[in-house]
Parts: sequence; structure tokens; C-alpha cells
Amino acid sequence: MTGGPPGRSGVLAVDSGGSGLRVAVRVVTGEAGAPGTAPRDAVPQGATAEEVTKEPVRTGPRGIDPGHLMEQLVPAVRSLTARTGVSRLAAAAVGAAGFGTLGDALRAELPGALAREFGVRRVALAADAVTAYVGALGVRPGAVVAAGTGLIALGTDLSRWRRADGWGHLLGDCGGGAWIGRSGLEAAVRAHDGRPGGSAALLACAQEEFGPVTGLPGVLYPRADRPAVLASFAPRVADCAAADPVAAEILRAAARHMADSAAAVCPAGEEARVALTGGGVRMGEVLLAPVREELARRLTHARTVPAEGDPLHGATALATALAGNSLALPLDASLLHVVTSAPGEA
Amino acid sequence: MTGGPPGRSGVLAVDSGGSGLRVAVRVVTGEAGAPGTAPRDAVPQGATAEEVTKEPVRTGPRGIDPGHLMEQLVPAVRSLTARTGVSRLAAAAVGAAGFGTLGDALRAELPGALAREFGVRRVALAADAVTAYVGALGVRPGAVVAAGTGLIALGTDLSRWRRADGWGHLLGDCGGGAWIGRSGLEAAVRAHDGRPGGSAALLACAQEEFGPVTGLPGVLYPRADRPAVLASFAPRVADCAAADPVAAEILRAAARHMADSAAAVCPAGEEARVALTGGGVRMGEVLLAPVREELARRLTHARTVPAEGDPLHGATALATALAGNSLALPLDASLLHVVTSAPGEA
Repeated sequence: MTGGPPGRSGVLAVDSGGSGLRVAVRVVTGEAGAPGTAPRDAVPQGATAEEVTKEPVRTGPRGIDPGHLMEQLVPAVRSLTARTGVSRLAAAAVGAAGFGTLGDALRAELPGALAREFGVRRVALAADAVTAYVGALGVRPGAVVAAGTGLIALGTDLSRWRRADGWGHLLGDCGGGAWIGRSGLEAAVRAHDGRPGGSAALLACAQEEFGPVTGLPGVLYPRADRPAVLASFAPRVADCAAADPVAAEILRAAARHMADSAAAVCPAGEEARVALTGGGVRMGEVLLAPVREELARRLTHARTVPAEGDPLHGATALATALAGNSLALPLDASLLHVVTSAPGEA
Repeated sequence: MTGGPPGRSGVLAVDSGGSGLRVAVRVVTGEAGAPGTAPRDAVPQGATAEEVTKEPVRTGPRGIDPGHLMEQLVPAVRSLTARTGVSRLAAAAVGAAGFGTLGDALRAELPGALAREFGVRRVALAADAVTAYVGALGVRPGAVVAAGTGLIALGTDLSRWRRADGWGHLLGDCGGGAWIGRSGLEAAVRAHDGRPGGSAALLACAQEEFGPVTGLPGVLYPRADRPAVLASFAPRVADCAAADPVAAEILRAAARHMADSAAAVCPAGEEARVALTGGGVRMGEVLLAPVREELARRLTHARTVPAEGDPLHGATALATALAGNSLALPLDASLLHVVTSAPGEA
């Protein structure tokens, strides 16, 4: 892809998560492509084309496996550059779940592999919380609560990052999908036992989802994806919340936990914005209304806003800023790691 | 062992749990042994000799493995009958963790195996909660809270059993060792994050136990015995409770959960007794004092008493009652299952 006649320039963005890769190539605005180099169906400058792969990147003894990521990335990028008419990738940003603790091999090998394969010399590797942040708020000070199966809050005043929670389903992730689902199932078994805090409505839902409640431990504990099983019950808690006070209180408690985490990381100053992002948003107003109330109560100085976009949008924004030498975010080995290689290095 | 001259008669008791088997042979009071049949060092009538094995009984696709249990039981019983001079086992009681959900193969095969191997024709198979109950209260109406790594409450009016909690560390076991440890570790990471509900004292303890707190997820989640890892932190929560209000409130909440479970299963009537048993007792007054207070508040009609003995003591009492045809407890396939075989059946 390098060394040919000057063509249209673009950036590469990747979001690597539990359900596979999402890959985007964006035509960089402000760099004109040579006339006639783009195929007929190419997207216009500034626009983005996306592909999705179905296989999550493997995690091995060295952490997230850069070779397995590249295997899936190469055909997706070939297809996207062909579709967009991009002949030169000026920068790439890869956001990956688990990057902070499992990113050593990515840090060591991925920038070189991207340089060799695609000629890209500016690479940002980021935790998925960072791409979620930039996707939701852009490069602005504030706090983002990313609530999917788990929950993590990330904040920045643009000079340093702060994070809260994200400790996983046994130590925290308070207010995330697994937490909400687990709380709902605990209320179900409490109702079965005749203990306080039980909900007959959640017991009925649990039996619909998982069969007789006495078999629930046998359904849940042998599974390797227990947090996902727990989180699968969160929408049923949301369904019950309008009519069931126990379910409503679970969502209110989740909202308080989200506000606690946001408050722990949000910078001072009137310009701070706060957003909620991730699958939690899909639970709708039954969760979003108490979240807005709790954020307003705990973060009087910050403005709560809807997320602008998703983590792939964030990775695209990171790559675009990197291509324009304007990445104004704090660097941190476990959150946002940037490598710029010289032309001969790869 | 059968068919010889009449000798001293005894009963066999087994407690099968997460750390192996505890086995006891008790010389049955009221049946005189033939003079001279007991070796010099035999224990007197009514007394009990015990052995311990180190290997937990395997659980396979058919549940708890009766063959593996017998492999460990046979040498222990040979040794115990020799030590006690018992030449005839009138009855056996086996209490096993997981019996309710994983006891099918035990129900199908263990009574026959015990009859063939030891000539014992009256066999009680019980959930460990039942042997804990009988060990703590004997054959009396009331409620027992068995708090180890997990937590289950069992109650009876002597006509039926009721149970509460025992749902495992993700759905309940509220107030048990894993619950207390998990709550303590959540308070530790909250302190690290600067979220409300944190405890600097528990954070310091967590770092002493598990190393830097940012590495805690990597220590905990790969382990197969996560509940035991969580429960291993419970004693540290107890250590902190005198000086740390967050730790004290965790133990107070555990005590409330225990009282909730006891209240859900305790029969009405002035004669009901309530006891706490299991490893939780070893946490001492820092937990026992709030437990007594919460039980007194929730169960005004019942008398809180110390546990008389442990689950092996309970299994011994079950076997002794069975030998004397006086087992006055409700039968229930998943809690207490009794098989009496005719002499020719084995």
C-alpha cells in the first residue's frame, strides 16, 4: 500500500471486545485524494466505512494475542481500503477490552505489525474505557461511565486520567449489567425463601428465564461466562421496575453506584461533561432517569450529556487526531499508549 | 464383620465436606459387648473414635462419587472398629456437602455398598445442613444457621424441614464467609478509587493479603476456588471491625442476613431454639455479639443457644437414633434419606 502514487489518505480504527472486532477506515478530511483513484462506490472524504468480525481476539499466557488480532484485521482492512479508495493509512487507533492488564504483547508487537502490513507509522493503543470516553465526549474534560456487563468510570481534566471501579463482578462493577442481574436474582431467591428483600415478580421472571429456581445454581455456576449470564437478567429487572418496588430500588441503587463512580473521577470546573455509555443505555428511561437524577445530585458542577458516539467512534477520533498531530489527551501505559515509528523502522 | 460371635455393637458416622472425610465409630450405649472382645485400648461404651481423611470426595457427572467415598471410608472404618472393639455396626449416617443437588449416585449405591462392606442395614444419608442442625440442636425444633464459606439456614418443627439461602456466592449465601470477605474487598477497592463506602484499613489489609490492589482481579478471577479466596479475607474484616466502622457495618449486615435466614425457617412456639454453627463461629464475639442481638430482635419467641456440637456429632446422633429405631426427624429426599435393607438384600 506504501510507495505507490499519492492517493487518498485515511485512518484506521479498531474496537476489540468480547464479541469480536469492529474495524473502520475513515477518509481523512483535508487531504485530497488524487483524482480518479477512488472506486465508484467509495465513501466521500470525512466519512467512514466499517466491518465487523465475529471472533473475539484470543487471550493467551502473554495476554491479548496480537497475531490473532492481525489475522482478523488484515482482510477487513483490505476490504475497507478498497471500498473507501484509501491508499495510505496515516494513523491507527486500537481500543481493546483488557488492555490495561492484558496488553503487554499488544504494546510490544502491534505497532510494528501495523507498520509492516499497512505502512501505518502512528499508532495509538487504548483501553476500551478510553475509546468509550472519546467516543462519548470527544477530547473534552469530564467523566464517562461505561456500563455494559461490567462498569468502569473514566475521567480526565486532559492532563491525567482517573478511573473508578471496573474491578469485575466479584469485587465491584457496581451498577453494571451483571450487578443489576445478580441483584435481581438475589431478590428472586429471597422471595422463594421468604426472606426480606424478595420480589415475587422477579422470582416469576427468573423462572421464565432459567427454569425452576431451585435449579438456578446448577444453571449458573458451571458456566464459564457467569457475568454474562447474570447480565442477561438485567433487562428483566428493567421490565419489572415500573410495577415492582424491589426492581425499581435495584435500578436506583445502580444509578447511585454510577454517580459514585462518576463523582470519583470527574474533574472540577464548569466545563466538565458527564455521559453514560455502553449497553446500560439500552435499558432505557427506567435506568436513565434515575441516573440523570443521581448525577445531578452528586455532580452539581458538571453537565450530563448524551454520549456522542460509541467506542469505535472514539477510536476513529483518536486516529484522526493522531494523524493530524493533535492528540491532546494524557498518555498512560495502561490506558493510552502511542507509538510513532520512523519510515525505515518496520 | 457379620456372622461371627456376638460382639460390641456400634454406629458409623461420616461427615463429607470440602476438605475430606471425617469418620467416627461410636460404641452404642446399652448393648453390652461380649467380655474380652475389645482390645485393651478400646474406648468405653458411649464414646467415639474418629479418623480424618484429607481428600474431598470427587464429584463426577453423576454427582458425588460413592465409589470414591467408599475407597476412603473402608480403611478408616477398619481402623476405627479395631480401636473401639466394635464388631457389628447397627447403623450408619453420612452427611455430605452438596447432597441435595449432587446426591443421586449416593442415594442409589451407598446403602448397598455399606451393607456389603460392613453389614450395616440401617443407613441415613443427609445434607450437611441436616448433620449441622442435629449436631447443633439435637432432635429438637428450631433453626440452625450454618455459616462457613457459604451460608444456609435450616429449620424444623419436627414434621417438616424449611431452608433458606444456601444459593452460593453469586446468588446469596448472605452473611457467610465469602460474603463477608467479598464485602471487605469491595470496601478496599472503593477506598482505592475514592468512592463512598471505602475503608483505608481494609485496603491496607487487602494489600497485605493479596499484594498491590490493582493486581487483585488477576489474583482472584483465574482461581477455581473463588468463594474460598473471598472467604479467606473474612477474618481480616473481623480483625478490622473494632477500629473501622466500615468493617463493623459489614459484620452487622452479615448478622442481619443470618437473622433474616433464621427467621425464614424457624418454627413458631416457645420451645424453638436457634444456633449458629460452622466456621463463622470462629470469628468470635465481633460477629457473635451482633448475631445474638439481631436474632433476639427478629426471633423474640426462640431461645438462642450455643451449638452443642459439629456436623460429625450430628451424624453420630443420627446414626445412634437410627440404631435405636428412634429417628424422630422429617424425611426428605434431598435432605434426609433413610434406607433399611433386609439381611439378604446386600
